[in-house]
Amino acid sequence: MPGTLKLDSTAGGNANGAPICKVALLGFGTVGSSVAKILVERRNTHLRLTHILNRNVARKKVDWLPADVVWTENIDDILASGADIVVEVMGGLQPTEDWIRRVLTSHKSVVTANKQLIAHCGPELIALAQQMQQQIEFGASVAGGVPVISGLHQGLAGDELFKIYGILNGTCNYILSQIEANGVPFATALREAQKLGFAEADPTDDIDGLDARAKLTILARVALHCDLPATSIVARSIAPIDAVDFENASQLGCTIRQISRAELKSGKLFAAVEPALVELNSPLARVEGSQNLVMATGLYGGETVFGGHGAGGHPTAVAVVSDILAIIRAEHAPNGEAGRPRHQSPTITSDFVTKHYLRFLVKDRPGIIASLASILAKSEINILSVLQKPNSSKSHLPLLITLEECPTSLVEQALKQINILDFMVQPCLHLPIL
Amino acid sequence: MPGTLKLDSTAGGNANGAPICKVALLGFGTVGSSVAKILVERRNTHLRLTHILNRNVARKKVDWLPADVVWTENIDDILASGADIVVEVMGGLQPTEDWIRRVLTSHKSVVTANKQLIAHCGPELIALAQQMQQQIEFGASVAGGVPVISGLHQGLAGDELFKIYGILNGTCNYILSQIEANGVPFATALREAQKLGFAEADPTDDIDGLDARAKLTILARVALHCDLPATSIVARSIAPIDAVDFENASQLGCTIRQISRAELKSGKLFAAVEPALVELNSPLARVEGSQNLVMATGLYGGETVFGGHGAGGHPTAVAVVSDILAIIRAEHAPNGEAGRPRHQSPTITSDFVTKHYLRFLVKDRPGIIASLASILAKSEINILSVLQKPNSSKSHLPLLITLEECPTSLVEQALKQINILDFMVQPCLHLPIL
Repeated sequence: MPGTLKLDSTAGGNANGAPICKVALLGFGTVGSSVAKILVERRNTHLRLTHILNRNVARKKVDWLPADVVWTENIDDILASGADIVVEVMGGLQPTEDWIRRVLTSHKSVVTANKQLIAHCGPELIALAQQMQQQIEFGASVAGGVPVISGLHQGLAGDELFKIYGILNGTCNYILSQIEANGVPFATALREAQKLGFAEADPTDDIDGLDARAKLTILARVALHCDLPATSIVARSIAPIDAVDFENASQLGCTIRQISRAELKSGKLFAAVEPALVELNSPLARVEGSQNLVMATGLYGGETVFGGHGAGGHPTAVAVVSDILAIIRAEHAPNGEAGRPRHQSPTITSDFVTKHYLRFLVKDRPGIIASLASILAKSEINILSVLQKPNSSKSHLPLLITLEECPTSLVEQALKQINILDFMVQPCLHLPIL
Repeated sequence: MPGTLKLDSTAGGNANGAPICKVALLGFGTVGSSVAKILVERRNTHLRLTHILNRNVARKKVDWLPADVVWTENIDDILASGADIVVEVMGGLQPTEDWIRRVLTSHKSVVTANKQLIAHCGPELIALAQQMQQQIEFGASVAGGVPVISGLHQGLAGDELFKIYGILNGTCNYILSQIEANGVPFATALREAQKLGFAEADPTDDIDGLDARAKLTILARVALHCDLPATSIVARSIAPIDAVDFENASQLGCTIRQISRAELKSGKLFAAVEPALVELNSPLARVEGSQNLVMATGLYGGETVFGGHGAGGHPTAVAVVSDILAIIRAEHAPNGEAGRPRHQSPTITSDFVTKHYLRFLVKDRPGIIASLASILAKSEINILSVLQKPNSSKSHLPLLITLEECPTSLVEQALKQINILDFMVQPCLHLPIL
């Protein structure tokens, strides 16, 4: 039977009499060592860790793994091994992509936690896996231990999903929660997060939304059946957010979160990763610290929420091991892909129609609100509220304007005219209100 | 290849070239008609509804289904049909169980939304399905449209789950939310729920926790691998809860919900369905109206939350159609069950160790707190707080006592002595504080 995982039933088995499935591990960092831990600790397991590949094996070796696990620095050892499934948790685009191609071509299935790789070339790797009658699973690439990929792909397969909203980056959520809780400036919250290990030394990928964007790309494929390059999604940094924005948001019954969202509407895919105001009673507002949350909305089932630990060695390793078990359980599914909705490549836009939050810093003089209002009026944008803080500095006067629902592009065009006005101390901060 | 779903590739196919899977429907009530709706409305579908069984077909027939759908009142027509998968949404234990056995024996797979049936004889039906090399899926039997069964069974398969907490009954949650929001007595909230269709004319199964208990039985099997009869789980009614309990709970930073919980600890399964105090910042406290929520805790991945619409025709139908697609996708999985942890049948107890809430109604006289305190002290139960409402009636004085963490059985034994004291107007209301 071609395409079936050929498990070695001569190599003994576990207490349940199941054949043994041999697993090789590429990468022995935080996630890799957690995967190894679960594999050796699991009771009744029919999974056997046989190979570990890492740079500088001599320094990486640990004493809590069985002595017969083969350590190597050479991918050829993995390709030539009897491993049934190769787990990739080394990260990066190269040589990872080449290696995964070679693994699939050598008739082994793949489990990967690599969001950038799957966002970048997931469809090609899935096609190669199908061609080789192998499988590639990537449940750990989005939201770590939260089983959102399988939930969307299988649990909600009976629905027609059209909307995905998520908090997909724990670093940003931690930083924003800290600004909110302690009223500290962005830079302080970032430094604190770095000190505690919640943010990396170079936090660009997280802060600027590139990490979340890769995850949203994957979710848009799995849930909305839209193939799109990650770079086609607008990503905006959370760096301009400061304590004052949380005060303002709070007056509007909202808080601020980095929101990744994709929505199919009138044949277009609206998509963006950006800081946004969310109502306090939304599940998105209640996501604390480094937690992740995904809200999927379908035509028939309405809103479904998945939440939990989006990162960390152990939760991510749970997703990896669940994927290993899914490959063993499902074998190959020749009917599976054929029956799925055809993937589409719709026009991608970030031009969401929402309410808007505009935070200005101006040099006070008569007529400021009049000039702003007249520019907005010319674009047919309606003002919802204007809030001027009393007792503020005349030379750095904070001014808050919220706008009724209108296309984001309309606001951005008006802001181009506004940002060059002589009373503007800095460009206006513009956030959507969800 | 035995055991593979034999889809009819000669019967044409859909735009994707996938073979057609024929579906028969037992029951055309709210859920059944929603399933039919999704099957006929889905784009690119390779699912074809061929038969519908219901009593009194003449009255049930609708004009929005294709004319070639066969309507029948006779199960033999379904058994003799070419249907690949039979969907059971008629409910009840008999004749449903017999019919499902006959369907499996006639080499058809089954999808059911019937929680009582699966709680009652799920393991036997699964064994029969395996023996016949067919599948039985029951994702819709717990939490309707929330994909919690697949999430626990597959998405979190890599973890060792040991704890399940859930809000599994939308009727109870709706009633409790109404008491909380409007300060109305239980009876009023129930009547209102019945008027709006959120509670049935005979609400016993919901109110007394029997509905939630069946669901918890299924979750304990799927998540904790514990086989147990539903009747072994203690279920307590929400009927004694009144507005005053929400006031009291609020003073303790809590609200009250009907909580279904099962926890593996020291080789025992602690399980119960009962009203309980939950902290306001818990995801359980924030479940509104008829929503459902399940929190699963694992050794490695920590807490994962699944939430959404727990009932209703369309959400439940999404779970049914997702199960149909899962059967088609997965074919048979000979490795699947063998590799799973062995099911266990541990001792079942409801003797949770928690903090406790005791609400008394007493005839006021000196020495009441002293008598209560001395009985509790003799059982080595520590009091956490005592709250006496000022300006209350002397003959019906409300008194609230909270207790430090101790086994529930200890409190129940002390209450046996307390409930017969002469100053007790009614038996003490006793709730756990989670």
